[in-house]
Amino acid sequence: MKRIFEVNPWTVTSHDLNSDDKRLQESMTSLGNEYMGMRGMFEERYSGDTHQGIYIGGVWFPDKTRVGWWKNGYPLYFGKAINALNFVKADIYVDGQQVDLAQNQFDDFEISLDMKKGILVRQFTVFGVHFQITRLVSVATKELADIHYEFTSVDGQAHQIHFDASVDADVTNEDSNYDEKFWQVLGQGHDNTGSYIATQTIKNPFGVPQFTVVAHQSFIGGEFAKNEQSDQEITDSFVINVPEKGSITFEKRVFVTTSRDYHSLEEIIAAGRQLSQKYQGQDYQSIYDAHVSEWSKRWEKADVEIRGDDAAQQGIRFNLFQLFSTYYGQDSRLNIGPKGFTGEKYGGATYWDTEAFAIPVYLGVADPSVTKALLQYRFDQLAGAFHNAKEQGLKGALYPMVTFDGIESHNEWEITFEEIHRNSTIAYAIYNYTNITGDHSWLDGNGAQVLYNIARFWADRVHYSVRKQQYMIHGVTGPNEYENNVNNNFYTNWMAKWVLQYAIDSYSEIDEDQRVKLAITPAELANWQEIANKMYLPEADVDLNGKKTHIFVQHDTFLDKDLTPIADMPQEIRPINQHWSWDRILRSPYIKQSDTLHAMFYFPDAFTEDEKRNNFNFYEPLTVHESSLSPSVHSILAADLRMEDKAVEMYERAARLDLDNYNNDTSDGLHITAMTGSWLAIVQGFSGMRVRDGKLYFKPFLPQKWTEYSFRLVFRGRVLEVVVNTQGAKVKLVSGDPLIINLLGKDIHLDK
Amino acid sequence: MKRIFEVNPWTVTSHDLNSDDKRLQESMTSLGNEYMGMRGMFEERYSGDTHQGIYIGGVWFPDKTRVGWWKNGYPLYFGKAINALNFVKADIYVDGQQVDLAQNQFDDFEISLDMKKGILVRQFTVFGVHFQITRLVSVATKELADIHYEFTSVDGQAHQIHFDASVDADVTNEDSNYDEKFWQVLGQGHDNTGSYIATQTIKNPFGVPQFTVVAHQSFIGGEFAKNEQSDQEITDSFVINVPEKGSITFEKRVFVTTSRDYHSLEEIIAAGRQLSQKYQGQDYQSIYDAHVSEWSKRWEKADVEIRGDDAAQQGIRFNLFQLFSTYYGQDSRLNIGPKGFTGEKYGGATYWDTEAFAIPVYLGVADPSVTKALLQYRFDQLAGAFHNAKEQGLKGALYPMVTFDGIESHNEWEITFEEIHRNSTIAYAIYNYTNITGDHSWLDGNGAQVLYNIARFWADRVHYSVRKQQYMIHGVTGPNEYENNVNNNFYTNWMAKWVLQYAIDSYSEIDEDQRVKLAITPAELANWQEIANKMYLPEADVDLNGKKTHIFVQHDTFLDKDLTPIADMPQEIRPINQHWSWDRILRSPYIKQSDTLHAMFYFPDAFTEDEKRNNFNFYEPLTVHESSLSPSVHSILAADLRMEDKAVEMYERAARLDLDNYNNDTSDGLHITAMTGSWLAIVQGFSGMRVRDGKLYFKPFLPQKWTEYSFRLVFRGRVLEVVVNTQGAKVKLVSGDPLIINLLGKDIHLDK
Repeated sequence: MKRIFEVNPWTVTSHDLNSDDKRLQESMTSLGNEYMGMRGMFEERYSGDTHQGIYIGGVWFPDKTRVGWWKNGYPLYFGKAINALNFVKADIYVDGQQVDLAQNQFDDFEISLDMKKGILVRQFTVFGVHFQITRLVSVATKELADIHYEFTSVDGQAHQIHFDASVDADVTNEDSNYDEKFWQVLGQGHDNTGSYIATQTIKNPFGVPQFTVVAHQSFIGGEFAKNEQSDQEITDSFVINVPEKGSITFEKRVFVTTSRDYHSLEEIIAAGRQLSQKYQGQDYQSIYDAHVSEWSKRWEKADVEIRGDDAAQQGIRFNLFQLFSTYYGQDSRLNIGPKGFTGEKYGGATYWDTEAFAIPVYLGVADPSVTKALLQYRFDQLAGAFHNAKEQGLKGALYPMVTFDGIESHNEWEITFEEIHRNSTIAYAIYNYTNITGDHSWLDGNGAQVLYNIARFWADRVHYSVRKQQYMIHGVTGPNEYENNVNNNFYTNWMAKWVLQYAIDSYSEIDEDQRVKLAITPAELANWQEIANKMYLPEADVDLNGKKTHIFVQHDTFLDKDLTPIADMPQEIRPINQHWSWDRILRSPYIKQSDTLHAMFYFPDAFTEDEKRNNFNFYEPLTVHESSLSPSVHSILAADLRMEDKAVEMYERAARLDLDNYNNDTSDGLHITAMTGSWLAIVQGFSGMRVRDGKLYFKPFLPQKWTEYSFRLVFRGRVLEVVVNTQGAKVKLVSGDPLIINLLGKDIHLDK
Repeated sequence: MKRIFEVNPWTVTSHDLNSDDKRLQESMTSLGNEYMGMRGMFEERYSGDTHQGIYIGGVWFPDKTRVGWWKNGYPLYFGKAINALNFVKADIYVDGQQVDLAQNQFDDFEISLDMKKGILVRQFTVFGVHFQITRLVSVATKELADIHYEFTSVDGQAHQIHFDASVDADVTNEDSNYDEKFWQVLGQGHDNTGSYIATQTIKNPFGVPQFTVVAHQSFIGGEFAKNEQSDQEITDSFVINVPEKGSITFEKRVFVTTSRDYHSLEEIIAAGRQLSQKYQGQDYQSIYDAHVSEWSKRWEKADVEIRGDDAAQQGIRFNLFQLFSTYYGQDSRLNIGPKGFTGEKYGGATYWDTEAFAIPVYLGVADPSVTKALLQYRFDQLAGAFHNAKEQGLKGALYPMVTFDGIESHNEWEITFEEIHRNSTIAYAIYNYTNITGDHSWLDGNGAQVLYNIARFWADRVHYSVRKQQYMIHGVTGPNEYENNVNNNFYTNWMAKWVLQYAIDSYSEIDEDQRVKLAITPAELANWQEIANKMYLPEADVDLNGKKTHIFVQHDTFLDKDLTPIADMPQEIRPINQHWSWDRILRSPYIKQSDTLHAMFYFPDAFTEDEKRNNFNFYEPLTVHESSLSPSVHSILAADLRMEDKAVEMYERAARLDLDNYNNDTSDGLHITAMTGSWLAIVQGFSGMRVRDGKLYFKPFLPQKWTEYSFRLVFRGRVLEVVVNTQGAKVKLVSGDPLIINLLGKDIHLDK
């Protein structure tokens, strides 16, 4: 654990600049607006260690690099988010001396992320001038990033600043093997609206589009000196005279337009120029206000307040802020990269995290249209899912583990071929949306194509074991990625059975035109029922603390392992993924994240309390929670079982995972999709929120060290507020029609 | 199957030149002398498809390329044999027209590999001149490759040939991702002995030596015109006047010297120059004779004659020829790459194939010193084996799956971490050498360090299953690489148990100084005995053709698979590795090569005939033999069980695997280590050769379509000849002291 920012309910602030923590600071101060985003890197030169990263949503490259031996069905390429052009770059000279905080003597440093407003402010004093740099990536105008400078003399002298403002296209990914370049410059230009540079991803042999990205920069303030265009960079130079007293401002606006929205290079360039022209009439304050106002609307639906624990308060807001910065449902071609726009790893690509963790949050904190955009995304990628299944020689749809366009684009077979449980989660999202919103039109309409083709995949992926007279699923990796290529993973089998049964049970309500398209025969449905009925689900009696206990078994041979609880092992081996070889991890009983328990997280009502308790008591002591997605699930299950201390302990790990750098890897980027966990732990865990037959249920408790918590909740056209404190729990209707909910076992009629 | 060469007992000849088959032709006409080797590529320009490849034994590069997510214990690099400088390159012009058989009209083409002499001769007529090009890679002088040209006018006209003879350092590997260059040129030179170019592998961050390779070319014949040195190439140009009648010859000699044998660049260059000077006094015929004479000595000990089946005859000789070209025990720092010097894949690196397949052959066909060099190789790499075990967090020695220097250098965890059965084969080689030669000095001496540290590895790699009260080995890949990460692979467990028991049983004979170094306590020995006694070996009753049959089970959950025999599947799916996805292969019951049966191949006397028969009958119908190493093992076991037709069928696949391109992949290079299989099938299989308590046993049969086979066998200082024909079987003593052998159950006294 490492906390480099101060605890404050609405801001993330630091007064330190330390080269060792620079990457961590950059991750934590990332900004984004779904369309694009960036790490909290400095505009001006910083000669110390830094990880520059600006990413454009949906702009990626299929890297052909191979090592080892390719086998049939392996993806042809490794899809990666690529670092796009650096459009905030500035070389700043005060009276001829270059600003570089890694080299200069400076004072009064502060970096502060205002989560309420979505603004990053940085201040420092150097060479007699105080700098205040305000950055925003506009949520009102997706193409716009704005950097506003205010310079104030602090020594009573006038100063002259030379400001070279650039867009730099000479960028690489940090994870490249040979500093391969994935960008080529198409052209540069300069006119009365500013200047631009146009770049394009290099050719690839896989039919993946070459993306064109144009950044157009314009300025307010300063005296224009010159425009320079080199092969890889454009620079506009200004002179800014800082007066003896008072301040002077300078503003850089960047409009980023891409081939994702426009066809020809000319159109992309023209669109950037037009945006620049359009905003020429607007001053900085109006750009600022429009941005802040959008954030304010988001918080109205989504804010969670915690009294008595500022660290927890800061944690939940940071998580929601970063989640919304990554995705807010404005473009159904985009999704939620596990590191969003904050780093390269997993960056930009879509994982099952979206359906497993993000959708349950968006369903509670935003308009259903946000979730609908995510469902639409998978429907639009059905062709890719067919392709993936076909590559494995299987029928139906196999949604990818890692993708940008629906086609599997990661290269570890034990994940991409085997971690197929994700396919059920894609179906679960349809169920979840339908159950919580009450809107069946997706399930009955286009969603049916997704659900039934996933069912088809499962029906082809099982095999019949003559010896056991049951259907089995061999060769899978469960959610616990600390094992792989196991047989009959309980979670995978249980979910496959659930998908088949859900598909069978829903069939009568599906729209006729969808049925025609699906062409499911009665024999096919009967086969699904046969498989669902005879699906093998491993279970056994084990000795647990001296008591015979019946559990579901994670997979066929799990119980042959050495089952020493992790608490009985030396502390020095934690986290095991940094101390043990992969071989030892695979053979160990230690579980990265919920696996058998994951089914109970999705379907708490489908298991008895004994089943939930026995399995929790057996598996949790073997769980090392080394996936950022793990603690929240365990918090929710512990809350369900009224193990309140455990629930709170797990919440704390989830809520401040990045703020406190729990896993010692936040310098690479934030765990965006895991940021859902704190909200889920409070709402599904502490407040016990469930939706059963269209009715909301709450069964709240108050963590001991808190005095109160409250949250807003979007539910079927309404906004509710739930307040839990030492006096008890209350649910208020903030907006929308009256409704009946159930609180602690009692039905309550809510009205305004 | 594709046969592009004519069937002839001692030559491999073709009269066709077809661009589609060019790579296959090149693989088949490879030459080597252990120190270096090359594919049968043309000297002169060939603008059609070709795979240029010249490799120097022990010269490799650690490629840092990574894709995906590195985990603890993964090798840091991917070791690869790199294509070395092209020292045979020639641009040849006849009367100003460039010779390029992909473009020219030509006649009388012939390419012929003389296996008796180790000579490749190529002939063709173009532009009125008949070319005869004779190539040898000398087994008398390891650094020497000699190319001899004879030009004859066929149109009664004189012709002038311009001959540019080069050494080209501008080479890449075909498997490179970005045409990465692994070589840098250090310098060039030219003097009265000829010219040279010196190259070095580029820097690497892993402490792997940078290899320097110098090629020095000199010439006999022609009129010297000029020497040219460019950045990446040296060229000596000659004019050769072909008379109206008769022939003219031209000879190029190349001496290759490397940093493996000399320290400084100056020494390496000087050594090449000295060799060139030394051989200036020798004419072509004497170089030729010295080379042929060495081959003749090899064949004296090793030849196998088959009457009645020329294809089989050609197959066994081709296999022995290519095996000896790859390795003949002259340098204990070298080993046997599975593709030898004939291609890039697996090229140059050492695999378990050496101990599993090659040593049993060398023990029969060559002086024991050849095997001893291979044992020494592993002893010398013990530090690497300790390193590999430590990387996995384990004690003792883990010999690598793929290596150049003892350190694991492949990057697929399911192979490198898990295919640990190889470790037992390294121990088995010590047993095998000791048993066959009767020489205990290796086992008792340095070999003990290898054996006992392998035993230590196994004792740490097992775990105790409380549930089953037995020791288990989880997380392995058996010899059947069509499954991986399985638990309790019968072969792996059985061999681990064997290693422990062999180590315990041999302990009393180990030299005292070795014991001191090993520092094995009585408690450690007792622990090994405990593990050996309680090793879990999966077995079960199965229904086989309606009969309850007891078998050993390949691994824990193998019998839950769909066990449809491969013969009942459509022919179109074969080979499955070219038609099925890796996912489907892993889940299938189809076995790439002997797995459970492999223990019976190593230790035929450790199993009852019923055990051998039941397991053969169960597993062979599930075996697809898609490893080149598979058919011979099954041939031997079938012969042991007197299933003669099966034994012959399997022999035929082994013997002409490359000559007939059975697996459709010989264009990439020859399956050098699999070439041992045909000898093993004849000697261990058809003739039933066994060594029991120091005595040789034979139990021969004659394949129906053969009229006779005979082979030479080296045994304890003697050379024997075994002749099997329709009259029966005879064993003769060719050289050495009298001895008693057992033939068909009867002891026979052999004398000269």
